[in-house]
This record gives sequence, C-alpha cells and structure tokens, in this order.
Amino acid sequence: MDSNQTSAVVVIGNEILSGRTQDVNVQFLARRLGALGLPLVEVRVIPDVFATIVATINDVRARFDFVFTTGGIGPTHDDITSEAVAAAFGVPWEPHPLAWERLERHLGPENFNKARQRMATMPRGARLIENAISVAPGFAIGNVYVMAGVPRIMRSMFDHLEPQLPSGQPVLARAVYAVGVMEGIIAEGLEAIQNRFPDLDIGSYPFYRITGNGVALVAKGTDEARLVAAQTEMGELIKSVGRTPVEGEPEQ
Amino acid sequence: MDSNQTSAVVVIGNEILSGRTQDVNVQFLARRLGALGLPLVEVRVIPDVFATIVATINDVRARFDFVFTTGGIGPTHDDITSEAVAAAFGVPWEPHPLAWERLERHLGPENFNKARQRMATMPRGARLIENAISVAPGFAIGNVYVMAGVPRIMRSMFDHLEPQLPSGQPVLARAVYAVGVMEGIIAEGLEAIQNRFPDLDIGSYPFYRITGNGVALVAKGTDEARLVAAQTEMGELIKSVGRTPVEGEPEQ
Repeated sequence: MDSNQTSAVVVIGNEILSGRTQDVNVQFLARRLGALGLPLVEVRVIPDVFATIVATINDVRARFDFVFTTGGIGPTHDDITSEAVAAAFGVPWEPHPLAWERLERHLGPENFNKARQRMATMPRGARLIENAISVAPGFAIGNVYVMAGVPRIMRSMFDHLEPQLPSGQPVLARAVYAVGVMEGIIAEGLEAIQNRFPDLDIGSYPFYRITGNGVALVAKGTDEARLVAAQTEMGELIKSVGRTPVEGEPEQ
Repeated sequence: MDSNQTSAVVVIGNEILSGRTQDVNVQFLARRLGALGLPLVEVRVIPDVFATIVATINDVRARFDFVFTTGGIGPTHDDITSEAVAAAFGVPWEPHPLAWERLERHLGPENFNKARQRMATMPRGARLIENAISVAPGFAIGNVYVMAGVPRIMRSMFDHLEPQLPSGQPVLARAVYAVGVMEGIIAEGLEAIQNRFPDLDIGSYPFYRITGNGVALVAKGTDEARLVAAQTEMGELIKSVGRTPVEGEPEQ
C-alpha cells in the first residue's frame, strides 16, 4: 500500500467533543477512501475555534495528500470552517459568484440574509462540491475538501466529489474468525504470519457475543492473491489450536 | 470554562481508520470528561505505527492536561501502544511486578506465554488501571492514561480511574428545539445571544426527522443560572419566528 496517496479527515465541531453527537462520518469516509485507494491515515476532531482550525488545516494539508473536513459550513455564528480555511490558505474570503447566485435564487432575494450569505462566501478560487439534498455547496481548495457535518448531506457531497478524485490501489480485506479462540493463544503464530506478509497489515480483533467470544483475524492490502494466501494461513493457525475457522467477519 | 483543565483522547487502531470498526469510545469519554469538568478538546485517531504513536503522545501530553488513549494493549503483534508510550516518555519498557504476578497466577504459568507477558510489560513507573472484566490492566504514566480499545473494558477502566482524577467545574447544557425552524432564519438572533453570553458556548444543530425538520439550540457552560438565562432567550428567539420552543433536545 506504500504507493498509495494518503488521506486525513478533520472533524470540526464542539458537538462531537462534548459527546452530544456520535460521529458517523469518519467510518463512512474511511470505507470509501480505502475503496478508492486513498487510505485514511489520520483523523483529528477539533472544536469550532478559529485559530485551531487554521493551525490544524495547515498541519494536515502539508502532511497528507488529501484532507476532508466535515462540519461548520452552515449559516450560524459557530460555522467558521470556511473563513478559517481561507485564512489557512492566506486567500480572501469572498462571495463565490455561482454559489451566491444559486442560493439567492433558491431562497429568494428577500430571504437571502447576511447569515445565509455566509454559506455562499468562500476562499478565493474555491471549487464547489454539489450535493443532492441542500442547495448550499461544500468546496475544495488545494488538497482540502470542505463538506457538511450532517451525515446525509456529507455523503451526498462525497458522492459528487468522488469521480473527481484520483484513485489508487483499492485497499482490500480478507478475514477469518473463530469462536473460542483467545488472542493470547494465537498471538505468536499470527506474528509469524505478519512477518511472512510484510506487504499486508494483519490485525487481531476480539469479539464478545452472546453466542460465544472469539477473535477475528483481518488481513488488509492491495494484492488479492497475497490476501488469500494470508487468509489461508490464518485459517490454519486457528485449526492448529483446535478451533474451526470461518471465512469473513463475525456479525457486529 | 476557561479555568477548567483540558483533556485529549488518542484512539489508536487501524480498525477505526479502515472503517472496519465504528468508534464509540470518544462519545463515552467526551460525556464523562465533560461531567468531571475536564472537557475534551481534541481527538486524534492514529494507526498502529510506532513512530506515529510516540510523536502523537508527545505532542498531546505537552498541550493538554490529561491524555486518554484507547486501543493497542492486547497480546498480539499489532498491540504496540504500551511500548510506544514508554519510548515517548524515554523510560524502559519492563515487566510490571504486580501486573505480571496477577496475570501469571490467573492464566497459570504454563499459559503465560511471551505474547501474554507483553500485557504485563509497561513503562517504568506505570500506575495500574484496573478493570472488572479482564485481568489485564491499563496503566497511567505522567498525565497519560492508557486504556483498552474494547468498549466495555475501556468503560470499566474509566470507572476505576475516575475517582483518582481531579475534577473541575462540570460542563452543563441547556437546550431548546423547534420543528419548522431553519437555521438561516434565526442565525443573526442567535449570534446576538452568543455575544451577550460570551462565557457560554452556543451551538445550532439542525435535525431531520420524519415528524419534521428543525433546529436544536444548545448552550454549554459551567454556570447554571447563566445557562437558564440563555435558554430563555433562545426560546424567545424561536417564538419570534412564530414557532413553539420545546425545552431539551429532540430524540435522535
């Protein structure tokens, strides 16, 4: 996977840090970015604080190939992502002609108040990210993609964005699991498999179900044949401790 | 809330970054830390990569009063959090006598293999964090609290840890919501309320339900009387646009 470009996600919002809201955007983006071959390698969750957003954006956009943000692009006073991204890039924050015209037409000039005008104000040079649910778009500037925090709007934005993104080697997974296996019993054997497959990421995940506790062994990588070979070895490892491996992952 | 000490959470695990697993530990810790008066102000999600863990721990432990990590303390090769935390603090990673003795006794010497011995190997000077579910403890060193990733074990560790933590001013919330209100209509009035209550964090959160879309207005802070006053003003704001405010938050 080393040849793949990398992604980071920045979740912007006090509501995640207070525990008011359970984030679900990270898992969605993680899966889609992995499938695209732009694997997610870091997430930051930060508050609606201007200086924090600026500093975080400038840190991650230098360290990763693609940065996706969620949250903070609505009309209220706590929606400061767009202005902060402009500051991070050192460009003016100004009306985006197309977004402005669309919002004004959709809402009617009499309802296009100062608060709503903020949703059409963007860093100079921003490219719009459309969505099928709200007339207010997200935008991209440089390698930073700014999306809504509301999950169904964010997902629609990502659907629109995805065809414009480059793609790499999709990250694939092969797994086996078994009830009755404890990690401590198979750990040394699993490490030996990891050492034979340095091109794969092999992980061990205990599960706890009413029908029995056990462990899922998951290999991730971009080469299907190598994944199948690792899956076979992981199955043999489970058999070697007297249990029956099942292909795939246990239901959550 | 400025007088409160601050917390950060570091989620360590490829399974969150691949989208295999939906994190639920952040929301749990966010709520408990807010109630303790040690509000969560940053989250990092990072992979099981030694150098990344070391660098992240050293960054956040310098910037926040308390750091809580989840994940990577089991017996398998991908469980490297403990060794990485030792490296971050520049101390030896060595058998912890009490953890070692307990695990050996619980498992039996014949089953206390090298992989399981890793769970009793910790940074020198580590203080154990017990839990009611597994005999394998977490640990604390300096201002860093290292816990399991499995949610029910992590929660039990936090239950054990909580009485040892200092506490600040609990972060409280007061909210109103209303069906039929769009953010763009109340944004200017809400900003005026925020300006009158600079000691509170006031947020606006749209919701989408079959029974009707609307917005929840949430004030957070440590002074109950100020929160009640802000809640009253937010209710008046909703009435001013012809809708009926309901105290509290809409069901998710």
